[in-house]
Amino acid sequence: MDAPLESLIAQLPEKTVITDPVSMEPYRYDWAHDETAGMPLAVVRPTDADQVQTTMRWASEHRVPVVPRGAGSGLSGGSTAVEQGLVLSLDRMRSVEVDPNLRIAVVEPGALNVEVKRAAAEHGLWYPPDPSSYEMCSIGGNLATNAGGLCCVKYGVTTDYVLALDVVLADGTKLQLGGPRLKDVAGLSLIKLFVGSEGLLGVITRGILRLIPAQPSRSTLVAIYDDVETAARSVVEMCRNIRPSMVELMDNASINAVEDYRAMGLDRSAGAMLIIQSDAPGESCSREISVLQQICDTVGARETFVTDDPEEGEMFAEGRRVAFHAIEKRGSIMLEDVGAPLPVLPELITGIAAIAARHRVEIPTVAHAGDGNTHPIVVYDASDPDSTERAARAFAEVMSLAISLGGTITGEHGVGRLKKAALPDQLGPEVMEVSRRIKAALDPQGILNPGAVL
Amino acid sequence: MDAPLESLIAQLPEKTVITDPVSMEPYRYDWAHDETAGMPLAVVRPTDADQVQTTMRWASEHRVPVVPRGAGSGLSGGSTAVEQGLVLSLDRMRSVEVDPNLRIAVVEPGALNVEVKRAAAEHGLWYPPDPSSYEMCSIGGNLATNAGGLCCVKYGVTTDYVLALDVVLADGTKLQLGGPRLKDVAGLSLIKLFVGSEGLLGVITRGILRLIPAQPSRSTLVAIYDDVETAARSVVEMCRNIRPSMVELMDNASINAVEDYRAMGLDRSAGAMLIIQSDAPGESCSREISVLQQICDTVGARETFVTDDPEEGEMFAEGRRVAFHAIEKRGSIMLEDVGAPLPVLPELITGIAAIAARHRVEIPTVAHAGDGNTHPIVVYDASDPDSTERAARAFAEVMSLAISLGGTITGEHGVGRLKKAALPDQLGPEVMEVSRRIKAALDPQGILNPGAVL
Ligand SMILES: Cc1cc2nc3c(=O)[nH]c(=O)nc-3n(C[C@H](O)[C@H](O)[C@H](O)COP(=O)(O)OP(=O)(O)OC[C@H]3O[C@@H](n4cnc5c(N)ncnc54)[C@H](O)[C@@H]3O)c2cc1C
Ligand SMILES: Cc1cc2nc3c(=O)[nH]c(=O)nc-3n(C[C@H](O)[C@H](O)[C@H](O)COP(=O)(O)OP(=O)(O)OC[C@H]3O[C@@H](n4cnc5c(N)ncnc54)[C@H](O)[C@@H]3O)c2cc1C
Repeated sequence: MDAPLESLIAQLPEKTVITDPVSMEPYRYDWAHDETAGMPLAVVRPTDADQVQTTMRWASEHRVPVVPRGAGSGLSGGSTAVEQGLVLSLDRMRSVEVDPNLRIAVVEPGALNVEVKRAAAEHGLWYPPDPSSYEMCSIGGNLATNAGGLCCVKYGVTTDYVLALDVVLADGTKLQLGGPRLKDVAGLSLIKLFVGSEGLLGVITRGILRLIPAQPSRSTLVAIYDDVETAARSVVEMCRNIRPSMVELMDNASINAVEDYRAMGLDRSAGAMLIIQSDAPGESCSREISVLQQICDTVGARETFVTDDPEEGEMFAEGRRVAFHAIEKRGSIMLEDVGAPLPVLPELITGIAAIAARHRVEIPTVAHAGDGNTHPIVVYDASDPDSTERAARAFAEVMSLAISLGGTITGEHGVGRLKKAALPDQLGPEVMEVSRRIKAALDPQGILNPGAVL
Repeated sequence: MDAPLESLIAQLPEKTVITDPVSMEPYRYDWAHDETAGMPLAVVRPTDADQVQTTMRWASEHRVPVVPRGAGSGLSGGSTAVEQGLVLSLDRMRSVEVDPNLRIAVVEPGALNVEVKRAAAEHGLWYPPDPSSYEMCSIGGNLATNAGGLCCVKYGVTTDYVLALDVVLADGTKLQLGGPRLKDVAGLSLIKLFVGSEGLLGVITRGILRLIPAQPSRSTLVAIYDDVETAARSVVEMCRNIRPSMVELMDNASINAVEDYRAMGLDRSAGAMLIIQSDAPGESCSREISVLQQICDTVGARETFVTDDPEEGEMFAEGRRVAFHAIEKRGSIMLEDVGAPLPVLPELITGIAAIAARHRVEIPTVAHAGDGNTHPIVVYDASDPDSTERAARAFAEVMSLAISLGGTITGEHGVGRLKKAALPDQLGPEVMEVSRRIKAALDPQGILNPGAVL
């Protein structure tokens, strides 16, 4: 295909289109470092929705593939560049405006999650969704992947906070969906369809997010276990009647990886650690924490302790958050995001350990345990073909295990390119077929993020 | 069209297909009593999803329109029968199974909302969505309209509680979407697309609903105002920093209608009444209620009082819930469901009063005020063509007013047939076109609920 890129460049302001390979390089990969990434024709960095429309019209006319891109923190290869396609990066569309009367944030997609949180906090308001990557991922990426995070066990995921979206379709049409209204059922739920669509159905150019009053102060409970299965059983027990605002798990390997990366005084001998928070208001907080502590003790924690000091609590949460960075230091990684119904979380976790042993790979695991969502991280040596092959097999088996337990191959990171092969196993042929029909209805030429998800 | 109904009857168990006009009569209308309802070919009452598939395959083959129907409590003519079509009533598919370990309810669509709530309560669990009609509407109808209710100001609407759906498409294909997993982003968000699709995209045959721990005990604050605008301003003030679990409004006309219908000792002289609840845990509850009370007093309530007695609190909520029944006694009604961004709720409410005056019709108004969602009810004399015409004009103007204030023509009842004419004004041509494309992708022959919504 010989697309006249010049005609696109001419329609856009200077410096909007990048074609020099060195400058394009950082836009070719996301955090999954997909080796099969192509060399794009150009990286387009629009500053407004009009420019996005111009770009999509041009791409449509010339049938050029387009990969929408936020901050590139994705873990599933969703924004991996496509050979001779465009990377449409939203990183220059970053405004955030908070309206405290409407209790909303009007955001451009390139704004970082942390920037939205900060702008809300200035008005005593809170945007809850908090992926561990919140300091480096964009709101557009969060919307496109329906990102989760640590507090979503109590406060829900991205889709629960979206009141409106502007979306530019493959042909350049701009849809304006929803508005600053708390309830609205006029017409089909298109907003919800675009949330989590991983760049397949349209380019998100603006969002209106619902904010809630600032989170009350939190107490933190840390529980140390001899083994990860007992920790998982505590989580099941705990979530039966209580709604903590955070329930994170780290296994022995991830605790040690974090300690190697940044000494925080975590217990290296622990089989697993749970980091639990309650933000129940007033006196209910300490009451809730002490019930949770009792459950951990009863189920079999080796040690538990509570802190009301926000900084100390945050230190443990931060320990959990840096786990990916820490584990990355141990070798090449393949990052899973499997989930299971909560009661079978212990089976999922012990099953993962068995897969690790069988294929002789290390699979440190951290988890948003209260949601049944785990991140087993397959560590391997990319320079050793045998190690690579064993890792790939383990990676696929972990997903099969999750499906066999009634779970999912991805709880929050998305399918992207890395988990695409496993998607039909989970969804089945009818759902795949209907998904393709909807994709075709919105993007008949299939130019948006081809090769991802479907 | 001369469809061989016999061939359908032969494929289904005895008594599944009703064709006698007297027995069909109750299945022709929902609560909107749409005069234009057609006489159906038959009413089909399947007892399982297989029979739904059989019915849809037959309808597809013979291009017979099908109107899915829950309990017929809809207020927008969404389940109005279509001439020579089938009414597909889910009223015999009613099972509800609660799994307390998974904290879910597995429901068939015909189960009433109240039946799900009760089954959950047996295990100390709670299914929050609570339309005022909860004792007579089906879960399938709730899912198909994305029903709201009284507590959704704090706890969200139906879509927030759906983990899985089985849906039978127009051609009889059954999709199984989701599962008992708290987080799952594998593939497009199809579940969310079917929620709120008003029978246009498929027939919901099963759902898995997320349950949460039982609601803590509530305190109720009642605030009486001289005028409805001051009441509305209190709501805006109140929701700025607090999340009450109920914020309902009744104006003078609806208070009097309720008193006429069932004497409850409400203050007939009040310009408006707010019924507010807090379910904050423990001591926070009385603290929250007293802050709310102070706001009402400061903004200008004539009188406020608080009760911790659950029965007394429920009595007021029940007064609000019977408002439709009460107002129905005053004449023929056209029921609105308009919403606005919260800060302009006062403008919406005063604008409605102006429309009532201009067209010389009574428009009593009740509201889920904390969501900005109001139910102005146009009362008229159906035997008087002039009154009917003025009512119709007022009905349309209220929707235009809502749109002009950045609001919606329907916050929770759905578009159905009654609000269809106003939908393009709200959504605009691009969104209408994309909605039609999605409809066509799933139901190419357009046999599902033709004439509704689009
Ligand atoms: C250390 C670390 C921790 C993480 N923790 C979490 C976590 O706790 N929870 C979680 O959910 N995720 C987590 N992630 C994954 C990642 O941060 C999220 O998926 C995030 O939402 C991606 O945002 P992004 O801006 O980086 O998007 P990108 O990586 O650029 O893109 C992600 C996908 O969205 C599409 N996309 C991006 N912007 C748009 C747009 N404007 N319009 C249409 N499509 C678009 C892309 O095509 C791609 O398919 C983590 C990642 C890292 C590196
Ligand atoms: C007194 C009163 C108070 C009300 N208060 C509220 C309220 O507070 N909040 C609120 O949201 N609503 C309220 N409603 C409206 C109504 O109860 C809701 O819209 C309810 O969800 C409808 O459920 P149903 O089973 O009666 O559905 P129906 O009226 O039978 O159908 C409603 C729509 O859903 C479709 N449908 C039904 N079942 C299925 C299925 N299984 N698969 C696919 N499509 C299906 C129908 O085709 C139709 O379009 C109230 C109604 C009344 C009469």
